[in-house]
Amino acid sequence: MSGTTASNEMAQEGVEATLAELARAHRILALNGHVNMSLGHMAWRDPEGRGFWLKRSGLGFEEVGPTDFILLDFNGRQLAGSGKRHAEWPIHAEIMRLRPDVAVTAHSHPLNSAVFSACNAALGGVCHENVLLHDKVAYYRKAQGLITTPEQGRDLADVLGHNSVVLMKNHGVTTCGATIASAALSAIFIERACTAQLLATASQLPWSGPASEDLVVGGPARLELPPHAEADFWAYFGRQLDRSEIVR
Amino acid sequence: MSGTTASNEMAQEGVEATLAELARAHRILALNGHVNMSLGHMAWRDPEGRGFWLKRSGLGFEEVGPTDFILLDFNGRQLAGSGKRHAEWPIHAEIMRLRPDVAVTAHSHPLNSAVFSACNAALGGVCHENVLLHDKVAYYRKAQGLITTPEQGRDLADVLGHNSVVLMKNHGVTTCGATIASAALSAIFIERACTAQLLATASQLPWSGPASEDLVVGGPARLELPPHAEADFWAYFGRQLDRSEIVR
Amino acid sequence: MSGTTASNEMAQEGVEATLAELARAHRILALNGHVNMSLGHMAWRDPEGRGFWLKRSGLGFEEVGPTDFILLDFNGRQLAGSGKRHAEWPIHAEIMRLRPDVAVTAHSHPLNSAVFSACNAALGGVCHENVLLHDKVAYYRKAQGLITTPEQGRDLADVLGHNSVVLMKNHGVTTCGATIASAALSAIFIERACTAQLLATASQLPWSGPASEDLVVGGPARLELPPHAEADFWAYFGRQLDRSEIVR
Amino acid sequence: MSGTTASNEMAQEGVEATLAELARAHRILALNGHVNMSLGHMAWRDPEGRGFWLKRSGLGFEEVGPTDFILLDFNGRQLAGSGKRHAEWPIHAEIMRLRPDVAVTAHSHPLNSAVFSACNAALGGVCHENVLLHDKVAYYRKAQGLITTPEQGRDLADVLGHNSVVLMKNHGVTTCGATIASAALSAIFIERACTAQLLATASQLPWSGPASEDLVVGGPARLELPPHAEADFWAYFGRQLDRSEIVR
Repeated sequence: MSGTTASNEMAQEGVEATLAELARAHRILALNGHVNMSLGHMAWRDPEGRGFWLKRSGLGFEEVGPTDFILLDFNGRQLAGSGKRHAEWPIHAEIMRLRPDVAVTAHSHPLNSAVFSACNAALGGVCHENVLLHDKVAYYRKAQGLITTPEQGRDLADVLGHNSVVLMKNHGVTTCGATIASAALSAIFIERACTAQLLATASQLPWSGPASEDLVVGGPARLELPPHAEADFWAYFGRQLDRSEIVR
Repeated sequence: MSGTTASNEMAQEGVEATLAELARAHRILALNGHVNMSLGHMAWRDPEGRGFWLKRSGLGFEEVGPTDFILLDFNGRQLAGSGKRHAEWPIHAEIMRLRPDVAVTAHSHPLNSAVFSACNAALGGVCHENVLLHDKVAYYRKAQGLITTPEQGRDLADVLGHNSVVLMKNHGVTTCGATIASAALSAIFIERACTAQLLATASQLPWSGPASEDLVVGGPARLELPPHAEADFWAYFGRQLDRSEIVR
Repeated sequence: MSGTTASNEMAQEGVEATLAELARAHRILALNGHVNMSLGHMAWRDPEGRGFWLKRSGLGFEEVGPTDFILLDFNGRQLAGSGKRHAEWPIHAEIMRLRPDVAVTAHSHPLNSAVFSACNAALGGVCHENVLLHDKVAYYRKAQGLITTPEQGRDLADVLGHNSVVLMKNHGVTTCGATIASAALSAIFIERACTAQLLATASQLPWSGPASEDLVVGGPARLELPPHAEADFWAYFGRQLDRSEIVR
Repeated sequence: MSGTTASNEMAQEGVEATLAELARAHRILALNGHVNMSLGHMAWRDPEGRGFWLKRSGLGFEEVGPTDFILLDFNGRQLAGSGKRHAEWPIHAEIMRLRPDVAVTAHSHPLNSAVFSACNAALGGVCHENVLLHDKVAYYRKAQGLITTPEQGRDLADVLGHNSVVLMKNHGVTTCGATIASAALSAIFIERACTAQLLATASQLPWSGPASEDLVVGGPARLELPPHAEADFWAYFGRQLDRSEIVR
């Protein structure tokens, strides 16, 4: 076996392992409020630079397995995998094009995030999840239909900018990150944050969050999670998924 | 075996297969917020023109099986099947009389739709489900009790007009379509749309949906689902049902 | 065996069968939002006129079995059964004393009814459940603590009057009926009605119910359920319970 | 075996039995709305005065078993057990330092309590749970980030004072008690109380609770639970847990 072949095999194994983890991330989001029929999808940047691996269309988040991904180039041409592409593939293509730091993107329609996106309000610091996201959320209000062209995808990516989350008016949410865990955790956090803020505003009580000056780096209300926090949270959701699948 | 008998047998098999699918549609609606004791019912236009097949009374949506239907003519006379008719059979009779394009009707009392029906408001474009239904919903406010006479059924059918959904004030919702999938999906979408709008209005935030001019055919906020979308969604709900019944 | 003994045995069998059904009613209420730890209780008038059979204390609604009842006289003296009496036994004693037509009473703390009881508002006709109860609900606002004395029980019974339901301010709800089914169904309906009305008022939309003149006997918005409706509903809940217990 | 060794063994068995019960308390809180990933923790004062036993970090409430505790002294030094300490260990250290009557503390982020904490309002007597807690809740608004230093812990303990519950603005809740049951029941009650009050205020209806003069000791709206009530409630939740774990 030549060195090249061996390294290809290793790369292939790496891709398979990552797609298995990406499939699990879909199922974890399913347990945390992100199911909307067969809508929504996550994507992972191909490590060989060919484009990105996208969940194939037609499946709910709770149904995604390791082989349910297709490889698309940044123009949406299907390079590998069987199954159809989601019409909103340009969301992922254009974010990854604009953001070299992003390896994973997630688009979904969780109910409270979708409703909050309609409310023309900015996320405030109701709970810790809101505070964690407070300077990482952008608001896309230019279009409310599907994002099906590169131009629309670029618009969305431009609005996202350097943030981790973009709320899409009357539509849903897209998150991104350097890892599966970070993109998925942002998706889970934004839904809890929007749920909390809708509850707070509905209460008619004079709710408030931390003052802006307390939220600056080093400020007393800024949440600086320890380095292992993301790994801990993600491991927790992995075990939550395992338990849910054992029950079945 | 004569040709007629063979064709009768095939027709009979077609009826049985469709009623099995109609029973599954009841159980799918049960998983999606449409259970209210033994109330609510779907109907399917008899392919031989004799009237319509109606879920028999006394069963919850989650309990309906392939033989739980009775054949009524458009005057409510029971032609086949055992079990009693629901008192509100005229809903189905009169809609099918007025709308030759309609093969399937669904009447139910999902909580958020029932509450929203009381609110004297029009559905706005909070989320995609609302947008999908925005020009397909009628509002029946003439009567708030049961629809038990042909006259009441006709009133309701007149208000429904060419739409897919009619919200019935202080009561519930009726949907219709050319297929089981389309009538059932409208029922699922209207409940999610009403849930979203109640959340948005309760939030006290200045929510808004797409502008009317953006919702016209070809407009940027109009959702034009690809042709396979309805089939994809319905297949998803079928698998959701299968999983729920395996668990039991 | 003397005739008297045989008739005693039959009576005893009748008591056992009814207490088994009363236990099931507790478990049905548990499935429909009435669990609040070990609080809440139903009672059944003793057919021999000795008093009433009350769920024993210390159990949640979902835990009640056929032997979890004690016989109390109308002064609270324990005549049969093992286990302790709930401190609020006078609720049942005084309603049964005042209302010879009542055979069954239910007291519980479902969340939305308890919250609505705090809201100093009258039930309006948001949905059919509200309309069914619209002229059968009384409002007890005199005391907000526990009902532990015959005097407090009598106050409550006086306010209940000829109604089927009394909302107890900052506390919960008590229902009554001639049968287990009717007392339990009123408990289920009042919780759904309060849930619906809280959703409607929270929406800030101008909700309304039928006009009073449409709700009079024979009026177009009055719901006159067919005679078999209560039996149908109750049978439905019985099957719901059976399914939930098979799953375990 | 020397007497000292025997007594040590008995003490050790007592510690193990109590930590098993403390683990169950975490799992009971998990069933009652207190899960937020791997966040939140309960602690128990070491009976030998060495400090307190704290749930180790990285686990969700539903995952805690009898060996998932570490012994910390009041300065946070780890004396026994494997696993890492939660960063907010000073919450427990400082409350126990200030309150010799407290043997158990619980810190968590239930959604409705966290949202209510943001609302700058005082708990009112919507339901019985609110009334039970009405004079036992303090409001900590000084800091909204994590409590990670002894100074911050002391601030929190000072605000808690002689109460059983402290709502922590934009964060969550901490409860304490002389027993596992009392600390855990306060955590369950505050979440139900906050849920009820958010529902009441959202309703826009003129809700009210008992007048202050009726809530004084001996007043008609004061809830004086019988001595066995706490044991009954806690036993109920223990059975609820057992049933949930049998299902798995």
